[in-house]
Amino acid sequence: MFAEIITIGDEILIGQIVDTNSAFISKELNKIGISVYQITSVQDDEAHILNALRDAESRADIILLTGGLGPTKDDITKHTLCKYFDDVLIQDKKVLKHVEELFEKYITTSTISENNRKQALVPSKSVVLHNAYGTAPGMWIKKNNKAFVSLPGVPFEMKNLIANAVLPKIISEFKRPYIVHKTIMTYGLGESAIAEKIADWEDNLPTFIKLAYLPSLGRVRLRLTGKGTNKDQIIKGIQAEAQKLYPLIGDIIYGEEEDETLEFVIGKLLAERKMTVATAESFTGGKIAQQITSVPGASAYFKGSVVSYATETKIHLLKIPEQLVKQHSVVSEAVAKSMAENAKELLKTDFAIATTGNAGPSKGDSDADVGTVYIGIATPKGVFAEKYIMGNHRERIVQKSVNKAFEMLQKEILKF
Amino acid sequence: MFAEIITIGDEILIGQIVDTNSAFISKELNKIGISVYQITSVQDDEAHILNALRDAESRADIILLTGGLGPTKDDITKHTLCKYFDDVLIQDKKVLKHVEELFEKYITTSTISENNRKQALVPSKSVVLHNAYGTAPGMWIKKNNKAFVSLPGVPFEMKNLIANAVLPKIISEFKRPYIVHKTIMTYGLGESAIAEKIADWEDNLPTFIKLAYLPSLGRVRLRLTGKGTNKDQIIKGIQAEAQKLYPLIGDIIYGEEEDETLEFVIGKLLAERKMTVATAESFTGGKIAQQITSVPGASAYFKGSVVSYATETKIHLLKIPEQLVKQHSVVSEAVAKSMAENAKELLKTDFAIATTGNAGPSKGDSDADVGTVYIGIATPKGVFAEKYIMGNHRERIVQKSVNKAFEMLQKEILKF
Repeated sequence: MFAEIITIGDEILIGQIVDTNSAFISKELNKIGISVYQITSVQDDEAHILNALRDAESRADIILLTGGLGPTKDDITKHTLCKYFDDVLIQDKKVLKHVEELFEKYITTSTISENNRKQALVPSKSVVLHNAYGTAPGMWIKKNNKAFVSLPGVPFEMKNLIANAVLPKIISEFKRPYIVHKTIMTYGLGESAIAEKIADWEDNLPTFIKLAYLPSLGRVRLRLTGKGTNKDQIIKGIQAEAQKLYPLIGDIIYGEEEDETLEFVIGKLLAERKMTVATAESFTGGKIAQQITSVPGASAYFKGSVVSYATETKIHLLKIPEQLVKQHSVVSEAVAKSMAENAKELLKTDFAIATTGNAGPSKGDSDADVGTVYIGIATPKGVFAEKYIMGNHRERIVQKSVNKAFEMLQKEILKF
Repeated sequence: MFAEIITIGDEILIGQIVDTNSAFISKELNKIGISVYQITSVQDDEAHILNALRDAESRADIILLTGGLGPTKDDITKHTLCKYFDDVLIQDKKVLKHVEELFEKYITTSTISENNRKQALVPSKSVVLHNAYGTAPGMWIKKNNKAFVSLPGVPFEMKNLIANAVLPKIISEFKRPYIVHKTIMTYGLGESAIAEKIADWEDNLPTFIKLAYLPSLGRVRLRLTGKGTNKDQIIKGIQAEAQKLYPLIGDIIYGEEEDETLEFVIGKLLAERKMTVATAESFTGGKIAQQITSVPGASAYFKGSVVSYATETKIHLLKIPEQLVKQHSVVSEAVAKSMAENAKELLKTDFAIATTGNAGPSKGDSDADVGTVYIGIATPKGVFAEKYIMGNHRERIVQKSVNKAFEMLQKEILKF
């Protein structure tokens, strides 16, 4: 069983917007056991859309289209669907009522026009899918056991339609295998190093469970997917296999929720322990603080940060002894430790993270090479710092260091 | 002249990653007068890639591929290119040397393997494009006046290759219409409000100049595109029309470079004046500092920040009088002004930005409603703060406030 996605709109092909719809739809389809064979982005052009439809129909069972359903002249998806299915547009009374209601209630800046009312026209062969958030309805057309689904391109309208109309309809009309996912979140070890450590386990996975490595900067998600007809066996199998990972790589697992960030996990750990953290940031420029505070409720455990970008700020505000800087240079283990200690003391917290390093493009107040960084961690029991070489790309040096700092902090929190 | 983009990788089709490469490439190609006809995402599968190549070749003059160039088994783009062009892989000595150097200098966590060395294998008919940031080289293959360009999927490697190798090569090898873009960066006014103010000007634009509104949070870019054969006329026309915007909306224009951020413009203004800035951030949690330091060379004018997330940090570290907090509450004009003043004094700078407010989800150490924020600005001449209501979406409250703070600061710097 394959699906294909066709995204329609000139704005995609001139690079004005990034097509995030396709990734969302693909992810949701995968969760219910449907693979996406191809994603195609085409122009607001009849011949082009017709071609894409023909090609997709030859390969897939479900064809999803997004975009081209607005009320303006360049939106031609509905007319093109009529051409493709040899159909005509008819007015749907329910949709018309909904459009009129939307204008009455929410769209107070303009009055309803003839063009807006035309949003209620749909191909006669289509089943209308209710778009709660907008005027363009979703449309579902069946042909020879294949389904064609046309959705608006506005992401929050499309997402709502996928979740509440499209997925339930696919589930009820198409026979699919039972499917369960579980994602193990890891940090600090590369894809190939993890693969080596869990090779035996991977080789012995039951045939109905598949493993995918999903790497990103400093993180690897391990996604287990169970697929089959015996629901009970799949759920128990996935659970049992996930547990077996802990003796093998338990030290790098930080969560079991897809998309759970490490700063979120750290927040939970600190809140449970009623402990607090502060940061003293040099080259990371406030990014650690910013990621900590991106978690709602961070005020329960985060007190603040001294972003001491300039050396003089380290000396004056963070009270790093000038002698220490002179002796070891500002990018050094000694300064990283002193920064962490002083942040912990000045902000009266249990833990503190400190960063000092050179993110480039040129050497700063130190002779350290671009990419050389020190990360310091102060805990209730002491302080330490580690040196890392983080490459030569400014943005990535910062992000890798932020990720590493969170790893180091989480390990320390777990000791309390 | 058309181009097509083919992005290769199962991770796109399972929705694990959003394809941002295509939008970047489309935008860059459009800038040099090349339209993208279609974007196609395909699996790591030989037959599928071959089909996509054939289809793209039948429609376009330039075909760009990204992805599938890694060192592992599932990366098959190079072998597939050999099949398509009836070619063989040969070792490129320069690439091999570069791969070995990368491992020596930066990739200290693992030793170079045979697979890594294979990154130096390229189709014999290809011209190698140097990838400064990674081991997979770009490749350019010409066939019947059509160009096929294969690039790594890692965005920062791909972007560098597009800018420094692909675009210059396209410009030198393909005849295109003469095209000039000019982007006027504005802040603080919505798309439709701007459209009203410049309606007469827009109606009277010469036919060879087109206008596009490109809105984002708190910013609208106005992109003028001149296209034709008379280079001189286009350059002069664009310049003249851009100038006419200043009497109409000069107060909201902050730059004339595409993608020039306001923090970049502020950096230039400060560096020119040899002046400095610091920040005192509460609910923005370090995001202002982080955006300032994302500009290379920020150490010339940014001294640091006190991220005083907790009220006690404002009192102890930032020396805000406890009495002031009690009297006015922590989210108040008085506290925002005091924070800005004290940051300027503590960090010995010419300017300081301060933020205090409630980004939600619940009320904090103050009774202020979610979305209520104060932004304070200290300058060599004094200090002031303004109140804003920023909606009810946590992330957007923070980002809107950061944007607004930069607007306020820029206006003040211009007075010196």
